[in-house]
Amino acid sequence: MRTQVGIIGAGPAGLMLAHLLHLRGIETVILESRQREAIESTIRAGILEQSTVDLMVETGVGERLKREGVPHHGTILRFGGRNHRIDFQGLTGGRVTTLYPQHEVLKDLIAARLQVGGEIRFGTKVTAVSGLDSKQPVIHFIGADAADSRLHCDFILGCDGAYGVGRAAMPDGLRQDYQRIYPFGWFGILCKAPPSSEELVYARHDRGFALISNRTPDVQRMYFQCDPNDKIENWSDDRIWSELQARVQGGDGFRLIEGEIFQRNIVPMRSYVCEPMQHGRLFLAGDAAHTVPPTGAKGLNLAISDVFLLDRALGHHYATGATDLLDGYSAAALRRVWRAQHFSWWMTSMLHRADGASAFDDRRQLAELDLVTGTVAAATSLAQNYVGLPFG
Amino acid sequence: MRTQVGIIGAGPAGLMLAHLLHLRGIETVILESRQREAIESTIRAGILEQSTVDLMVETGVGERLKREGVPHHGTILRFGGRNHRIDFQGLTGGRVTTLYPQHEVLKDLIAARLQVGGEIRFGTKVTAVSGLDSKQPVIHFIGADAADSRLHCDFILGCDGAYGVGRAAMPDGLRQDYQRIYPFGWFGILCKAPPSSEELVYARHDRGFALISNRTPDVQRMYFQCDPNDKIENWSDDRIWSELQARVQGGDGFRLIEGEIFQRNIVPMRSYVCEPMQHGRLFLAGDAAHTVPPTGAKGLNLAISDVFLLDRALGHHYATGATDLLDGYSAAALRRVWRAQHFSWWMTSMLHRADGASAFDDRRQLAELDLVTGTVAAATSLAQNYVGLPFG
Repeated sequence: MRTQVGIIGAGPAGLMLAHLLHLRGIETVILESRQREAIESTIRAGILEQSTVDLMVETGVGERLKREGVPHHGTILRFGGRNHRIDFQGLTGGRVTTLYPQHEVLKDLIAARLQVGGEIRFGTKVTAVSGLDSKQPVIHFIGADAADSRLHCDFILGCDGAYGVGRAAMPDGLRQDYQRIYPFGWFGILCKAPPSSEELVYARHDRGFALISNRTPDVQRMYFQCDPNDKIENWSDDRIWSELQARVQGGDGFRLIEGEIFQRNIVPMRSYVCEPMQHGRLFLAGDAAHTVPPTGAKGLNLAISDVFLLDRALGHHYATGATDLLDGYSAAALRRVWRAQHFSWWMTSMLHRADGASAFDDRRQLAELDLVTGTVAAATSLAQNYVGLPFG
Repeated sequence: MRTQVGIIGAGPAGLMLAHLLHLRGIETVILESRQREAIESTIRAGILEQSTVDLMVETGVGERLKREGVPHHGTILRFGGRNHRIDFQGLTGGRVTTLYPQHEVLKDLIAARLQVGGEIRFGTKVTAVSGLDSKQPVIHFIGADAADSRLHCDFILGCDGAYGVGRAAMPDGLRQDYQRIYPFGWFGILCKAPPSSEELVYARHDRGFALISNRTPDVQRMYFQCDPNDKIENWSDDRIWSELQARVQGGDGFRLIEGEIFQRNIVPMRSYVCEPMQHGRLFLAGDAAHTVPPTGAKGLNLAISDVFLLDRALGHHYATGATDLLDGYSAAALRRVWRAQHFSWWMTSMLHRADGASAFDDRRQLAELDLVTGTVAAATSLAQNYVGLPFG
């Protein structure tokens, strides 16, 4: 079996890359361990940067996004018992974020691939990659038929997440791991209720951080900072609501609209970067190369900006034979990755309360939030980073 | 002995307040433990914010400052082996900082006081304050004649630094201390050499922070981050120069001009705020109420902004009998104090290398420095804070 670009993983990075390369006439095969139904029903991230939206629309996979996506023209930082709005649109010359859940993005990309006869092999377990230093690297996999198979290709794209074969294939002597584990997690719920706020609410409270976001008019996503080793069983619905209400309480009488909680999970918080993001004919993109804490809503968008660069580099190579953009991929991608890492760390540190934080730290945090919500320059910097710096 | 406003301490806060109140016809007496010669020869801070310069010029004590002060139109952040300039003037609509050493400010203020017959009692040890809840509080002191004396006044101003009687007189049940001790210090030198850079250089290096600043065309002030428990004796001149050169080394060939080192000291780094800054008829200003690490050059300027508010509040009170501005002094001053505390903490954390910092932290710091020097919004926010937000 042979293709031009072999892609491991049908997440946002792998699917978007296959779509972009198809538009250039470059052939791909995607190998994915999960089934289509599982991918299309797992609720994950939901905030798209302006450049992500633009790329989807410009390349013909943004029809439903334009119809169903909800633009967020700003966001709320809540502290001192009241809301302080950051006006994305006004501060960035019209750029906004769009609420459109990740699994909806994946549905659209899968449909687009299959419609043009693109090949996605679901239920396929990749076991190894080889020949990375040659011009014909190979992906070894066990197919749906349980047989050992090989996919020969010109390039291998590791879009298979933090625990995939792609990252593991980066040689030990070459690969550098950069990591930070945060001493807190997010307790997340999905509940059946109307939105409590039209825009996301990032709440800083002495009891800890909370995030109020929405998924659909009937389903809301809320989080509160917790001990990462806490157990879901420790939290009754009453206790969850009481904690969430306490963290958004204020002089303005703001209350969350409560509803049936139908999903609970605890999300660990970590930052991770793998350097470099390429070795020989293997290229990493998305979670295979980096993890961000969810506070900045950057994970999905970084995956898209990685493959934006890869598409351009591969297109340039197939058109001209040149390898300069491919050779420069890692350095170019890492600039944006580290920008997002800093931003995600900053949003996290500014809004969470660390165990053992002193009264000085609390006041200093509030002074920073005052600056960010009270001066145009600091608010603009937050807004620009949140809606996302341009790709490329 | 009686006056309207009794001021403890002839530092920037006490002297400037006496000067401002004199212009309103309000009488003061300053009690100061040190001798005039000692005050006028101790080299300390040297960077004046735009509003500090404006206030001195507008109130007639800025003649020598205008002549001898050196405007700094920007500053250099040095990392990755090269200089990155923050253009204060361009980013803030013309605001700059001015290099004019603190002891020169004190000389000008002392001269102005004495010229109009203002009373400054040098060599006077204040032992206590009393009657703070009454309308006639009293400062108890031992004068140059070694006799116990009393200064009766309407208001007492504690401008006597971190270890003075003023802060100590804030009642335990009322006073809240906010503190952060940094795990590093600054090893500072004064040396006889021409400037290595026209503008200050804030250098971030894997070996730690360094600051290259100047005092006069012939005297330079340089610092490097060190263990706060290190000893001056551990550092030969050769070792000092070698460490400083290593921290500013880069691809651009930048080298420090070396010269005879004639002063060495180790500065601890801490942040401190006393809340509230007033009790009854006692008001605190400057270091008596707060300490900032020197990284943001805010200490002297905060003292001046405190007394700007006090002058207005006392003037309003003596003119109208109203106490609203006096009652609101602490809250108004603390807003600016916490802004400066956050800024000083931020500059410190962004530029210093903490013991045990991970490779992730290093990259994240560099990504933040890239943002601050590479985008207008973030650079503007730094510049606005550095040249100083408006008083009042």
